[in-house]
Amino acid sequence: MTAPFDYAPLLAAGTPPPAVKWNGFPKYNFIGGHNDAKHLPVDALIAAATAVLKREGATLATYGLNSGPLGYRPLRDFLTGKLKGHAGIDCAPDEILITSGSSQGLDLINALLLNKGDTVLIEQETYGSALTRIAKLGATAIGVPLDEEGLRLDVVKEKLEELKGKGVVPKYIYTIPTVQNPTGAIMGEARRAELIKIARDYGVMIFEDECYSDLVWSGKRPPSLYAMAGGEGVIHIGSFSKSIAPALRVGYIVAKWGILSRILALKTDAGSGALEQMVLAEFCTKHFHDHVPKLSKTLAGKLQTLREALAEQFGTAAEFGDPPGGIYLWIKLPDNVDTVKLAQAALAAGVSLNPGPEWSTNKEYARCRLRLCFANPDPETIKQGVAVLADVCRREFGVPLRSSNLEKA
Amino acid sequence: MTAPFDYAPLLAAGTPPPAVKWNGFPKYNFIGGHNDAKHLPVDALIAAATAVLKREGATLATYGLNSGPLGYRPLRDFLTGKLKGHAGIDCAPDEILITSGSSQGLDLINALLLNKGDTVLIEQETYGSALTRIAKLGATAIGVPLDEEGLRLDVVKEKLEELKGKGVVPKYIYTIPTVQNPTGAIMGEARRAELIKIARDYGVMIFEDECYSDLVWSGKRPPSLYAMAGGEGVIHIGSFSKSIAPALRVGYIVAKWGILSRILALKTDAGSGALEQMVLAEFCTKHFHDHVPKLSKTLAGKLQTLREALAEQFGTAAEFGDPPGGIYLWIKLPDNVDTVKLAQAALAAGVSLNPGPEWSTNKEYARCRLRLCFANPDPETIKQGVAVLADVCRREFGVPLRSSNLEKA
Repeated sequence: MTAPFDYAPLLAAGTPPPAVKWNGFPKYNFIGGHNDAKHLPVDALIAAATAVLKREGATLATYGLNSGPLGYRPLRDFLTGKLKGHAGIDCAPDEILITSGSSQGLDLINALLLNKGDTVLIEQETYGSALTRIAKLGATAIGVPLDEEGLRLDVVKEKLEELKGKGVVPKYIYTIPTVQNPTGAIMGEARRAELIKIARDYGVMIFEDECYSDLVWSGKRPPSLYAMAGGEGVIHIGSFSKSIAPALRVGYIVAKWGILSRILALKTDAGSGALEQMVLAEFCTKHFHDHVPKLSKTLAGKLQTLREALAEQFGTAAEFGDPPGGIYLWIKLPDNVDTVKLAQAALAAGVSLNPGPEWSTNKEYARCRLRLCFANPDPETIKQGVAVLADVCRREFGVPLRSSNLEKA
Repeated sequence: MTAPFDYAPLLAAGTPPPAVKWNGFPKYNFIGGHNDAKHLPVDALIAAATAVLKREGATLATYGLNSGPLGYRPLRDFLTGKLKGHAGIDCAPDEILITSGSSQGLDLINALLLNKGDTVLIEQETYGSALTRIAKLGATAIGVPLDEEGLRLDVVKEKLEELKGKGVVPKYIYTIPTVQNPTGAIMGEARRAELIKIARDYGVMIFEDECYSDLVWSGKRPPSLYAMAGGEGVIHIGSFSKSIAPALRVGYIVAKWGILSRILALKTDAGSGALEQMVLAEFCTKHFHDHVPKLSKTLAGKLQTLREALAEQFGTAAEFGDPPGGIYLWIKLPDNVDTVKLAQAALAAGVSLNPGPEWSTNKEYARCRLRLCFANPDPETIKQGVAVLADVCRREFGVPLRSSNLEKA
């Protein structure tokens, strides 16, 4: 045996604590963007892989295939059509950069814009990893409360005015306008127009995250902020993680070339995974428009299963809406429940959940709130998991009062 | 038309200049880790994709498949065997982290260790992108000259002693000991043992990059530094880019869990591309050991084509060795040649090359040197490209003296 090397003195400042070993998914997995395994279009993906590799497999011998650093051209071609039809975005293939998941999009855009000490505006309840990424860079995220249409523009204006008084221009306003994470809100067209106007008045960029926008039950949604602003002053990101498969790690950034060329200069990874891009392009060109409505229908059903299970197990102790799309439900429990503690106790019982404070800039407001993701577990598992969660919550916090009437698995 | 938004005031400090639009590969492509397109095992990759998707395709619905954040377990299982047989490394699957290319390995290890103002030791001639990444983080790379076995340990010791006198412990010694990039040197076992001893004496970590180590013509190589050090004080990275296909973007880090767990905590990308990992694991388990020798034989032939073409076109004006493996040749031209200027003129004539100064910490020494990659162009293209390069060099710098006797395509 060689003596252990002491690497501790060599670590960079601010290194996060070590990761813990992975021990498999919990039995009742209500976190993360996991999707419905039964709807994974395996046969069509095999056919797509076979066709595209037969035709173009040899191009894997070159970085970026024959498409250059923006990503596989047929995938960008597909996206121009999809974005036009779906989100109203009129863009050229060279205004799209394929990324390794939309999380790389977050990283690149933050790298482009954020210095330590910078300020951004953000939806008060938002994607937890957006908050941690901003914090890691030493920037400040100022939360703006939400209503049933998302960002409250009166507060946006108030915050911008307040910052202006201090000589601060926030680097961007980060918003998930279509199926907001975690509330599920969809911002209406009039409010979008007003947000664009306010942002422009204050010289602030809008960072539009549309990761979930494909999963709207009705299939209809307002035009994207990017489309409505003619692409000026807006950077748009999206993903195939929610509509096809999260493990593929394929997302994209849409921006005018003037700014996209600067983002591209920061993407020093020699390209995102080519096989994924090739297979997705081949699959999506043929099947995207059929696949997504079918997946949405299943997800809409799971949402109702979750809502019914919560009503049955928690009664009036759990308050929640009926989101028009997505993969998550935002829930308020009684004020005495601390969801960070609940999450720990629940995990010990096999239930994972996102405690509200991890998904909010307002830790006190979010203390008794939580996010449950419903796309991955099957309906029976959803029911059982909610029953277990109710039991844990009752044991830890005395609510819900009535006892479960569901047999445990 | 919407008025253009002025994003310039919002950019972070130190943002690099915008990328230029990609206009396809040059006709004579002697840069980058591109590989031989004819040896891309397309049919076997199709079979692998079909088999693995049929068996496990539904797991794409969960982040990390069912393998957790270290990467697809069967790929890590394959690697434990390959690393044992090939590099003498005895490691568990949980001591391997699959990365999005070895470039992500570089980024993660730099993120773990480097603060602004830190120092590292590095081979004087080395992978250009390793140098730019270190510079971008505000760290200083001190070059150590190379001989036919790689790192000169007398200078390593001298530099460490000098730094010690200033109270500086460099964060790591970065080395490509097996098929050094760009010189092709292979460090012998005795020198490896001595390097490990020196590094340990000074409390410095070794960062071993073995991206090219699969491509040794003889198929034989000394044990890796990681193996010889029992994994203590060494972080090892590798890649499938050179042995299978660069566009796949699959690399790996090998480290003891104490340090790998800290690297994993910095990998916030929700996993590397799953389809690539699945297909690679399926393919490599069956074909890696056949595929690599066949590819190596082709590459060895291309190297000789390149060497002969250089001898024919440049005569004594070009000096170079006969590397025992790899995909590149390091060449010295007469002292009056400035390879940065040569690269610009050559590109206009359709020839891309890496000018020496981009691949060295010693810009003056490297001024008349260059790197040519030979894996991608076919033999006829190699010959033509070298003839064009000789013409450009003669026109710009008056060398080589004799004129080309090859017909231009």
